[in-house]
Amino acid sequence: MSNSLSEADLPTLADVRRAAARIRPFPRRTPVLTASSLDALSGVKLFFKCENFQRVGAFKFRGACNAVQSLSPAEAARGVATHSSGNHGAALALAARLRGARCTVVVPRNAPTVKRAAVAAYGADVVLCEPTLEARERTLAEAVADSGQVVVHPYDDARVIAGQGTAALELVEDVPDLDVVLVPIGGGGLASGTALAVRGISPGPRVVAVEPLGADDAYRSFQAGERLPSVAPDTIADGLLTSLGVRNFELVRRHVDDIVRVSEGAIVRAMRLLWERMKIVVEPSGAVPLAALLDGAVEGLAGQRIGIVLSGGNVDLDRLPW
Amino acid sequence: MSNSLSEADLPTLADVRRAAARIRPFPRRTPVLTASSLDALSGVKLFFKCENFQRVGAFKFRGACNAVQSLSPAEAARGVATHSSGNHGAALALAARLRGARCTVVVPRNAPTVKRAAVAAYGADVVLCEPTLEARERTLAEAVADSGQVVVHPYDDARVIAGQGTAALELVEDVPDLDVVLVPIGGGGLASGTALAVRGISPGPRVVAVEPLGADDAYRSFQAGERLPSVAPDTIADGLLTSLGVRNFELVRRHVDDIVRVSEGAIVRAMRLLWERMKIVVEPSGAVPLAALLDGAVEGLAGQRIGIVLSGGNVDLDRLPW
Repeated sequence: MSNSLSEADLPTLADVRRAAARIRPFPRRTPVLTASSLDALSGVKLFFKCENFQRVGAFKFRGACNAVQSLSPAEAARGVATHSSGNHGAALALAARLRGARCTVVVPRNAPTVKRAAVAAYGADVVLCEPTLEARERTLAEAVADSGQVVVHPYDDARVIAGQGTAALELVEDVPDLDVVLVPIGGGGLASGTALAVRGISPGPRVVAVEPLGADDAYRSFQAGERLPSVAPDTIADGLLTSLGVRNFELVRRHVDDIVRVSEGAIVRAMRLLWERMKIVVEPSGAVPLAALLDGAVEGLAGQRIGIVLSGGNVDLDRLPW
Repeated sequence: MSNSLSEADLPTLADVRRAAARIRPFPRRTPVLTASSLDALSGVKLFFKCENFQRVGAFKFRGACNAVQSLSPAEAARGVATHSSGNHGAALALAARLRGARCTVVVPRNAPTVKRAAVAAYGADVVLCEPTLEARERTLAEAVADSGQVVVHPYDDARVIAGQGTAALELVEDVPDLDVVLVPIGGGGLASGTALAVRGISPGPRVVAVEPLGADDAYRSFQAGERLPSVAPDTIADGLLTSLGVRNFELVRRHVDDIVRVSEGAIVRAMRLLWERMKIVVEPSGAVPLAALLDGAVEGLAGQRIGIVLSGGNVDLDRLPW
């Protein structure tokens, strides 16, 4: 993937709106939940966009669905492919099935069996590889060399970014007068899509992305004004281990107001509070924005109306972090 | 409590409707969620009324709120009292606080500290007692002897039953064409209120109550046609350990179509499925109806539209049953 981008490579608010219209029959319109006890704890008014209730258990279905629904008939006939150890693989598999398209997912051998089974259950071909990025990319290239399947990157893809933005589009339709939207950031698909989506509102909410301290390449890149590599990322928020993408960095640089960081302990505390107080299952990555609020990582919010995208709910119930 | 009941002691559908109007400002109108993967597993179309999202985390708030809002000003000035080791104590405490009324809750010494703390946090006076029914009732009688506080029984109370029925009233408003409503049964507050609530629909859904095999006094009473005592009840569904009440038995006998039983293993499997597939936190008691469906305990449901009242979501996240 090249570092040189043209404006044509970057999705816009119009692309997010087109994505919403294109995929309308497929994703759930997830509810926006409130929680007075968490309002009392945090001193703000919270609105949670529950993408943990989304199909395949995460917002990832939106982007994958927009990518697949954007294919020409000829492309769809060839199918799609990706490499993934997590939610994107299952999301692409389901999105492909809904279009009747073939899907191949390259999965590292060390990925949890349950995730591999989920991808297979949605009808995708699973190809195992060694658990290195090099092996994943090589195996994927080999898999598509003959088939001509269209590769759909999990986040550094204009169609995927536009699709992820549809969650925030629904959030601001349901709660139009938000002061701030908080969103987790890893590869940057959700964060950049969200930042685009809220640009249709005037005066729009600020967008603050939140990143684990243990995987803070987006924070460092944002501060430095250039995309910096991820170095030995380590966090319980497994959805945020990936490095910020090229398109994602450019959009975040332009449209995200700030990036803040949170500790592992704060993430686990926030995750547990969401389960206990709201009775919902949220994965560690999804708890990262609330962790920032409870830790005071974002200043000047007292009394404001805060939207939070709860990104997903796929956790291993046998291995909870408390 | 006497075993001789007059018709005037029994609430009706009209009482459930009056309760709904009386308490309208206070409980959440909880959402009805669907889950296509659970539909596929069970072969029916499921509609989950999510009382795990209710205030204090359980439907119990509805009945307590109706009881407290039904008090005369003079009664309210004296306050309310109950004994409870579980959700009813917290529910009554919050309901009293919302009316500015005093509340005393007698709590057995062996109740979890977290439950005692919840009752106290809602502003109630907590009185500890030995963990026997005799000690609970005696301590409660002593506590109210001087104060004149009105005792609100957790389920064998017409106001409480009418209040619990408001959950099903909302369910059938949102999904008017249900074939069956499944509801857990313990003391019978929720089951009898639900059976009353759906009588406004013609042809109304059948109401089937579901009980753990390890605490099946309602099933045995229903079969025998007389209220039989509970004998050493033992189940993970701690909300269903109590014995069917007098009013509750009479209403169940008249208005519930059937009672079926489920094993402990089926309850845990259903609970885990609700967490994994729907990303919601449901307590064991709340999973009992789905357990019956997955175990085939209710016959002739294939393809039908089934409402399930998910009764609550208060679980100890440090002690999950898997």
